[in-house]
Amino acid sequence: MAKPPKCVGEVGEFPLIDRIRNILPFSRNKDLLVDIGDDTAVVRMDGRRALLLTCDIQVEGRHFRLDRTTPYRVGRRAMAVNLSDIASMGGKPTYALVSLGLPADFPVKSYDRLFEGMRDELLPHRAYIIGGNLAQTRDSLIVDVTLLGEADLSRVLTRGGARAGDRIFVTGHLGASGAGFQALRAFGKKVPGKYKDLVARHVLPVPRVDLGRRIARSGVASAMIDLSDGVAGDLHHLCTRSGVGAEIHESLLPLPKHIGEIAGKSGKSVLDLALHSGEDYELLFTVPSGVPAGKIRSIRGDSGIPVTEIGKIVRREEGYCLVDSRGGKTPLRPAGWDHFRRTDG
Amino acid sequence: MAKPPKCVGEVGEFPLIDRIRNILPFSRNKDLLVDIGDDTAVVRMDGRRALLLTCDIQVEGRHFRLDRTTPYRVGRRAMAVNLSDIASMGGKPTYALVSLGLPADFPVKSYDRLFEGMRDELLPHRAYIIGGNLAQTRDSLIVDVTLLGEADLSRVLTRGGARAGDRIFVTGHLGASGAGFQALRAFGKKVPGKYKDLVARHVLPVPRVDLGRRIARSGVASAMIDLSDGVAGDLHHLCTRSGVGAEIHESLLPLPKHIGEIAGKSGKSVLDLALHSGEDYELLFTVPSGVPAGKIRSIRGDSGIPVTEIGKIVRREEGYCLVDSRGGKTPLRPAGWDHFRRTDG
Repeated sequence: MAKPPKCVGEVGEFPLIDRIRNILPFSRNKDLLVDIGDDTAVVRMDGRRALLLTCDIQVEGRHFRLDRTTPYRVGRRAMAVNLSDIASMGGKPTYALVSLGLPADFPVKSYDRLFEGMRDELLPHRAYIIGGNLAQTRDSLIVDVTLLGEADLSRVLTRGGARAGDRIFVTGHLGASGAGFQALRAFGKKVPGKYKDLVARHVLPVPRVDLGRRIARSGVASAMIDLSDGVAGDLHHLCTRSGVGAEIHESLLPLPKHIGEIAGKSGKSVLDLALHSGEDYELLFTVPSGVPAGKIRSIRGDSGIPVTEIGKIVRREEGYCLVDSRGGKTPLRPAGWDHFRRTDG
Repeated sequence: MAKPPKCVGEVGEFPLIDRIRNILPFSRNKDLLVDIGDDTAVVRMDGRRALLLTCDIQVEGRHFRLDRTTPYRVGRRAMAVNLSDIASMGGKPTYALVSLGLPADFPVKSYDRLFEGMRDELLPHRAYIIGGNLAQTRDSLIVDVTLLGEADLSRVLTRGGARAGDRIFVTGHLGASGAGFQALRAFGKKVPGKYKDLVARHVLPVPRVDLGRRIARSGVASAMIDLSDGVAGDLHHLCTRSGVGAEIHESLLPLPKHIGEIAGKSGKSVLDLALHSGEDYELLFTVPSGVPAGKIRSIRGDSGIPVTEIGKIVRREEGYCLVDSRGGKTPLRPAGWDHFRRTDG
């Protein structure tokens, strides 16, 4: 028999979340539509509206380093990753609460800039910080944001609705943030101009809030998730929740410009960057096969953001595969960025 | 001209919160009834119900030490302090989100116990943990809880409703948690049995959720706050928000048994413990002078918790005073526990 793990560093993020499910009582609350397991919880507000709730804790040294970014960007980013969770349900962000852990020597100027960043990220969505809490920490900045949103009860998209035969779509490009990160590693502050777009995607994710709402309102999607851990990992979460498998086609993956050059520099393959590097914060959604092409095309609207079909949902028994250009199938490794496991492990 | 502060350690918790208000845009959202400044934000859900939102971040080494308490108690406490915030608005707790920062070597067993503590604290209120987030920290456990609640829109109690002439009441006893803390300091693990109740009040606060709802439903109160920082500090918050002053009578303060002995041992005065030691998590509320005594008496019901009149609200110009047994008035120092300022400062 395997020895039970002794400390949380030996366990990954998702097994740790599963443990919570076993400890918590089964809720018979009929208003609780989605709880632990999706990134965003969903509660019925009334006959028409659903309340969405998500939170994300960002830790200095783990999620950001203040010598590589600015307090303003940390603030924007902390809000952006939560906005992406609300976007993934097709919701409209409404209110945020912010808990901060600050070392005593944290500059007041940086404190102000942090809140300016959060404010600026929320403003276009007419969402507001309405509460929070401060505490002193020994040495790290900690930013924990809880974000609320609202959606039509009949239009909330979760991870659980995909069925065999559904087509799989993604917004934007895959691997842009990962390539940006590698560009920063390779060039430091002297990143050539042509890679600036990639770096920008890494430094400041752009949550697809409007597009997420369009997808939900269009009524064409059966399930949705945002890509925080890499498409291979996140699509796997969606499949697990939906009880299905999936096949995605290598040749269909929408790649950002210059990703090949960065891959060459970094010693990683383009495929690895596109599938496994996290933090793209694009949306992946599934659409039943009968939906007319025009309806899907219209989602994009005038957003300027590409929406690309990358594969299809299959029965669980058919597995979770990558299809290469010659039609060969290989099992797709669901590994992505684990926000918890030891990085040196 | 005074030099502006350079780092957050030179600024207190409340001035830091005021800075946020200056940075954030003024919201014209009519549904936002109470925002930053109260412990709990209030949002209109519909014509009848209000949504309450609060959060509280607890940091190892700052709010608790794992060599002096247990992970189970840390979990209960993290939830209890949030329950107290919901109680202070007269609300019913509903859903919680939990963000955890954990060092890699944190035992899995302790992780489980932490969630068991949170669960057990929520269960009597039929409130549930519905989401959360995990991140790795370098060396400290961090527990950030966001708690939601619900209240009748017409019955929400805030800090802002007190008027000159209102009577001031508190639930339970004042200084019990502070005396418990001093007993632990003085006796360590060998605390005499007669002080166990005080220690219990320090180790595990009992949020006054049911009593808070009774007070709100009774319709007699004009304002309410929970006592987290000590009555001198918290009543001052209420007065500031309400634009009033207050007089409280030394002889009326409800003191717990044995507080005199502990005061003697610890070198603090009974008055200091009762007024300035935080974390009692009792409720303080104000009642307009015309309300009949029977209506106030009935609040207590069969709860077994005393409800004691300690003074009255006066006009702001009349100040913020303590009245001694001979009727002499001295200004009441609003200082309480600052969850942020340097402890060695």
